[in-house]
Amino acid sequence: MAGSVSGEMIVRRPFDPVVHDLDPNFHLTKFSDLKGLGCKIPQDALNRILEPLREQDKSQLEAEQAHFQYVVPSPRIGIGMDACITPIRHGGLSLVQTSSILYTLLDDPYMMGKVACSAVLSNMYAMGVTECDNMLMLLAVSQKMTDKERDVVLPLAMSGFKDCAEEAGTSVNGGQTVVNPWMLIGGVATSICQPNEYIMPDNAMVGDVLVMTKPLGTQVAANAYQWLDVPEKWNRIKLVVSEDDVRKACQRAMYSMVRLNRIAALLMHKYNAHGATDIGGYGLLGHASRLASIQKNDVGFVIHNLPIIAKMAAVSKACGNMFGLLQGQAAETSGGLLISLPREQAAAFCKDIEKQEGYQAWIVGIVEKGARTARVIDKPRVIEVPAKDKDGELW
Amino acid sequence: MAGSVSGEMIVRRPFDPVVHDLDPNFHLTKFSDLKGLGCKIPQDALNRILEPLREQDKSQLEAEQAHFQYVVPSPRIGIGMDACITPIRHGGLSLVQTSSILYTLLDDPYMMGKVACSAVLSNMYAMGVTECDNMLMLLAVSQKMTDKERDVVLPLAMSGFKDCAEEAGTSVNGGQTVVNPWMLIGGVATSICQPNEYIMPDNAMVGDVLVMTKPLGTQVAANAYQWLDVPEKWNRIKLVVSEDDVRKACQRAMYSMVRLNRIAALLMHKYNAHGATDIGGYGLLGHASRLASIQKNDVGFVIHNLPIIAKMAAVSKACGNMFGLLQGQAAETSGGLLISLPREQAAAFCKDIEKQEGYQAWIVGIVEKGARTARVIDKPRVIEVPAKDKDGELW
Repeated sequence: MAGSVSGEMIVRRPFDPVVHDLDPNFHLTKFSDLKGLGCKIPQDALNRILEPLREQDKSQLEAEQAHFQYVVPSPRIGIGMDACITPIRHGGLSLVQTSSILYTLLDDPYMMGKVACSAVLSNMYAMGVTECDNMLMLLAVSQKMTDKERDVVLPLAMSGFKDCAEEAGTSVNGGQTVVNPWMLIGGVATSICQPNEYIMPDNAMVGDVLVMTKPLGTQVAANAYQWLDVPEKWNRIKLVVSEDDVRKACQRAMYSMVRLNRIAALLMHKYNAHGATDIGGYGLLGHASRLASIQKNDVGFVIHNLPIIAKMAAVSKACGNMFGLLQGQAAETSGGLLISLPREQAAAFCKDIEKQEGYQAWIVGIVEKGARTARVIDKPRVIEVPAKDKDGELW
Repeated sequence: MAGSVSGEMIVRRPFDPVVHDLDPNFHLTKFSDLKGLGCKIPQDALNRILEPLREQDKSQLEAEQAHFQYVVPSPRIGIGMDACITPIRHGGLSLVQTSSILYTLLDDPYMMGKVACSAVLSNMYAMGVTECDNMLMLLAVSQKMTDKERDVVLPLAMSGFKDCAEEAGTSVNGGQTVVNPWMLIGGVATSICQPNEYIMPDNAMVGDVLVMTKPLGTQVAANAYQWLDVPEKWNRIKLVVSEDDVRKACQRAMYSMVRLNRIAALLMHKYNAHGATDIGGYGLLGHASRLASIQKNDVGFVIHNLPIIAKMAAVSKACGNMFGLLQGQAAETSGGLLISLPREQAAAFCKDIEKQEGYQAWIVGIVEKGARTARVIDKPRVIEVPAKDKDGELW
């Protein structure tokens, strides 16, 4: 089933700066300092800050609905969600937009561009939207880069972003590039949709199950890989993993991050998903909590299983659980969708996605009666997800 | 004519950090280091980097046109222009998108939010598009801010952005907030347009004149204001300006930057504009050159007049012309539109905009036969543009 991943599971050679006339010690990851949860404003602080703006949104929406009663009210989702949906001036169409901005967590500029594009689109796929009409690319180039480094890194990152957009059946027209202390890369995805093209995320029902489409541990793997060069860090984890384990895990993470959630979005329609979110910087639990908080029904999410890239649970433990990986708190980059599906459809969904893409999806939890919160049980089952080569063989 | 500026020309009190329980020495402008042209990747470097991507665009466009010959070919503008125009899947509509990201050049977070929003929209107005369907807000919060500073600055900046969007008849749904060494603020504007709603920028004709809708000198004024607190800088300019001059110039710059180019965009239709650009980080000459380079006809732009916020030409001279203001090179923030208009329409355009908004526009140059370049003549005439209070009185 290599077709859908463009044959990329051939182990990609690490980015070699020397091939591009750069210093052998050039590391893209050194151009931004924040890792993991530090990348984000704490979720509670952000919620507090955004609350007044949401209130304004609500009153504006009510005013609009009062004013335009002859219009079938289109749903509208605003600030703080995975995607925004805005009714537009032209017949029944809505504008669905998502944005994302990442720090560099890979040394390979081309792959980093792909990851960023995939992450931007992932927010859109979480709404069940499979067709993107345009993408913008947002780039901040580190002022610490030499002109030469900039001239190598930028075109590669842009090409990666562009190629990923093409794989997703869309293109990149427009964007913005600025100079900044850190390198940042991200973008905006826009789709003009008819109402049947998106799935509102707020219909989870008691009895649903929660399915996740990619394993956790992307940032743990990317960090562990960087620690190969940092003896005091490496010494903490070398008892539980080999260098080879770490390299494989980082490759696995990289391919997981560039893999589009597009087929998952398509299957959300086929299997009547009741809502979804994509897993990013706030981690599985953070995004699950956010999804729970906006539900229409009195539901709560309980997560029992944590599929994790092989060996990364051990790495996390060896570091004193510094990422919170085993509590579902570790930040992820371009993670899977977390989808609320009718119980009787979930197994078929998982089977179908595996058939189409060659990758597993997992039932990770349940939707029960509750107060719109999410939790991971005390001792969740860790599912070790091995890396695979392009023929689907386990490493 | 105060109506269109929301009565804001009442002199706004400087932002007082103490009112918000912040340190009296809190300055928002200290949270990003780059000023002026430094904010941008040099135009030639960016062009070199973008060239291969544009080529791909072109071949993609050709492939599409070959494939969809039954579709009336819609124009498409891509990477590196003020706005991108992308035909969408739904009947004859195009997606027009613009983005902009600014460094903080004002200490007032609310006004900085307004300026950023106005700058994002300005790119769209340069295409003659007056109706924006949605905006996204992009924010990078400085990691050097305390939690308290962040919690004060963010809501104010967001409110400013949102209020400006409302003045423009649109709203903000969605966006992204990240942590960064510097504070950055920007966004994306999106409009779904019918073909008659936008004006392609590439139809300038020999005999046209160039009209500019806001004075130059915004960043010079903002910088001069910051120098009031830096004796070694202030000493260089205090012989040519008073403290009061600088305060007025900075106020004038601030109101100029938040003023929308929306009426200018509307009048572009009425007076048959042949194309326009908005003036930002590359300065008048930089943006004029870019506009010239994409023209269909063999034209060149020659600029004779430089309308500049009062006293800022003198400040620039006193600093050894460090901003290149008198060569039209100084970076601007949320500057005016530069519009190519039929000669016989230009005076009426200027008169109309002054009638509607109470602000002057100026004929600054001409379009002659040429090789798609732009230049400022050797000794351009400097037009000193005084600040005005809300009743239109000159200060």
